[in-house]
Amino acid sequence: MTHPDQRRPLRGTAHRATAEPAPFTPDDFSARMARAARAAGKAGFDGILATPGPDLLYLTGYAPVAITERLTLLVVPVDGDPTLIVPTLERPDAEAAPAATRLTLRDWSDGGDPYRLAAGVLDPGGRYAISDSAWSLQLLGLQDRLPGTGYAPLTTALPMLRAIKDADELERLAAAGAAADATYHQILDVRFAGRRETEVARDLADLLTEHGHSEVDFTVVGSGPNGANPHHEAGDRVMREGDAVVLDFGGIKAGYGSDTTRTVSIGEPSAEVRQVHEVVRRAQEAAFLAVRPGVTCESIDRVARQYITAAGYGEHFVHRTGHGIGLTTHEPPYIVEGEKQQLEPGMCFSIEPGVYLPGHFGVRIEDIVTVTDDGGRRLNTTSHTLAVVH
Amino acid sequence: MTHPDQRRPLRGTAHRATAEPAPFTPDDFSARMARAARAAGKAGFDGILATPGPDLLYLTGYAPVAITERLTLLVVPVDGDPTLIVPTLERPDAEAAPAATRLTLRDWSDGGDPYRLAAGVLDPGGRYAISDSAWSLQLLGLQDRLPGTGYAPLTTALPMLRAIKDADELERLAAAGAAADATYHQILDVRFAGRRETEVARDLADLLTEHGHSEVDFTVVGSGPNGANPHHEAGDRVMREGDAVVLDFGGIKAGYGSDTTRTVSIGEPSAEVRQVHEVVRRAQEAAFLAVRPGVTCESIDRVARQYITAAGYGEHFVHRTGHGIGLTTHEPPYIVEGEKQQLEPGMCFSIEPGVYLPGHFGVRIEDIVTVTDDGGRRLNTTSHTLAVVH
Repeated sequence: MTHPDQRRPLRGTAHRATAEPAPFTPDDFSARMARAARAAGKAGFDGILATPGPDLLYLTGYAPVAITERLTLLVVPVDGDPTLIVPTLERPDAEAAPAATRLTLRDWSDGGDPYRLAAGVLDPGGRYAISDSAWSLQLLGLQDRLPGTGYAPLTTALPMLRAIKDADELERLAAAGAAADATYHQILDVRFAGRRETEVARDLADLLTEHGHSEVDFTVVGSGPNGANPHHEAGDRVMREGDAVVLDFGGIKAGYGSDTTRTVSIGEPSAEVRQVHEVVRRAQEAAFLAVRPGVTCESIDRVARQYITAAGYGEHFVHRTGHGIGLTTHEPPYIVEGEKQQLEPGMCFSIEPGVYLPGHFGVRIEDIVTVTDDGGRRLNTTSHTLAVVH
Repeated sequence: MTHPDQRRPLRGTAHRATAEPAPFTPDDFSARMARAARAAGKAGFDGILATPGPDLLYLTGYAPVAITERLTLLVVPVDGDPTLIVPTLERPDAEAAPAATRLTLRDWSDGGDPYRLAAGVLDPGGRYAISDSAWSLQLLGLQDRLPGTGYAPLTTALPMLRAIKDADELERLAAAGAAADATYHQILDVRFAGRRETEVARDLADLLTEHGHSEVDFTVVGSGPNGANPHHEAGDRVMREGDAVVLDFGGIKAGYGSDTTRTVSIGEPSAEVRQVHEVVRRAQEAAFLAVRPGVTCESIDRVARQYITAAGYGEHFVHRTGHGIGLTTHEPPYIVEGEKQQLEPGMCFSIEPGVYLPGHFGVRIEDIVTVTDDGGRRLNTTSHTLAVVH
């Protein structure tokens, strides 16, 4: 192994240490739980059930070391005080959580029945909104123990619980976006032709880390025909002159997400790449210009889709126009047909139309956008011009 | 950023390239799906529903790039052929999965209703065993669309579906165990005193990677009082002479898990550390010696617990004795009071008793063990003697 003294320091550490914003306080979490309880009551629920993941993190600042089969459950009732149920052996961690002093902690030991403990905390005839990603094992455990209870997914029940970001959250999202933009600027200088997609993907990951990301969630490098698979990550393909390359990358910085996409050309682009890129660029711009409070999510999707359809590529735009971003890189609001939710100031989401020509290439352009009082503001600000790399 | 030419190659790559076992074949996956369907029928179910994660990986070899709110669902009916429902934009990935030719693939597009598609594949009055970690969002979607269906968690319905490992799987688990053992041997030579826990944790992660792990899941370094919190990971504490240090580390190598724990002493141990270590060592040994086909899981737990209780430390052994391991580092069988499952040859699990003295120190010793025709075999073989480090 590397001798410790010779080890290169974790890159970006110094940067992170200075750029880290002030942590959220117990009061912040209390206020979030109170607001969540009010929203749940207004929506006809008796409370909110949050399991490890972004909901629990949002409401309490607590992120267990691992998400396992062992039940950890935050119960935020509409009436009464919140309770956090944890496995006994994770109790010390839970006690160290920012919101611990604002909760009743109850623990259960291996071999015990966590659902019996939960049953004592829930209303046996109650209706609860539960974290989308709560394990079915645990939901079935609750349904089995309390057959009179009812459940709805949290994003269906209270889709906008985490969607409207406050000023401190927006600051973090903007910082994550700026770090992704800095990454894009630098990636334009690396060699593409003759290297594998995976090599440029590693460059992207290194750069995101260098610019303060604690977590790199995806580094898509889709060159030539691989770019036509919108969920291609990065493969062994050796890139070459003339390839269009989709670069879609992001992760978590100071707890909040980044996610941006640009499509570049290795050497001079063909007329077809130029044309498709221009269609996507305009569709992205049109959708962005449609952003303002009161407009529905689906109407933003429609603007992008109608533009691309009118240009003759509608069948090749095979995904929704965007998704929300915050503590995670995929959350409500979803910018998709059927989503009638109206935009409100503080919401943050991607606008990322794309065109995918199977066997040939793909083009996608993506910015994170936040809704302001009278329009939209991009949190990614790098140029949309088709960049030429080498 | 590092110039690509100067970049250190990913350590362990060469090693992995030579040590990688032959991949499982489409026939392997067909056989697993057929066996699962038979087991489901025998247990009174109409089929198995697997979502992204270890069940889907085990049955089809398919691991989507990310686990998201978008429904990916494998339906293995007791009667009939398996169907895999995937989001349209992930269809190319699904088509590349090892078992793709043995499945009917059906896809749904953003804005469409995946539960309507699922409803056409499921029996509207059927009873299904569903992956433990399937999102509640998705289970509630199925329950809502098909109110006549019933569900049970897969590990409750068919707890032993993945528990009995075949020879190819055992080979992978043994290789992962050997890599963890090599890591332990080397960590004994690094400096502990005067360094932070996080630094040794990083050494462990580097070594696991060097020895072929593709994923490092945990690197616990619990020194002095931190060792008394069994789920402490690694913190800023600077270690010093006289500390007992719990080292619990593992991850995934060639698709299968490793997980081992040793407790070491920085310099000469105190009499109390020696005594507690000896109690834990003997409890681990006793529990291991009790392993053989036909014995229940809970009886293995009892052997360890009774030994520690008799030695006067029962209240300080605050967790179950072990958990299964395979494609994940936490799965059935669980070695815990109340688990009546009998051991069968091929099962693999940890035996990891511990004693935690709050404010002082903790001791845990953990090996992965597999059940043979007439006893148990350790997949970790490093010494249980209390090692002295510096």
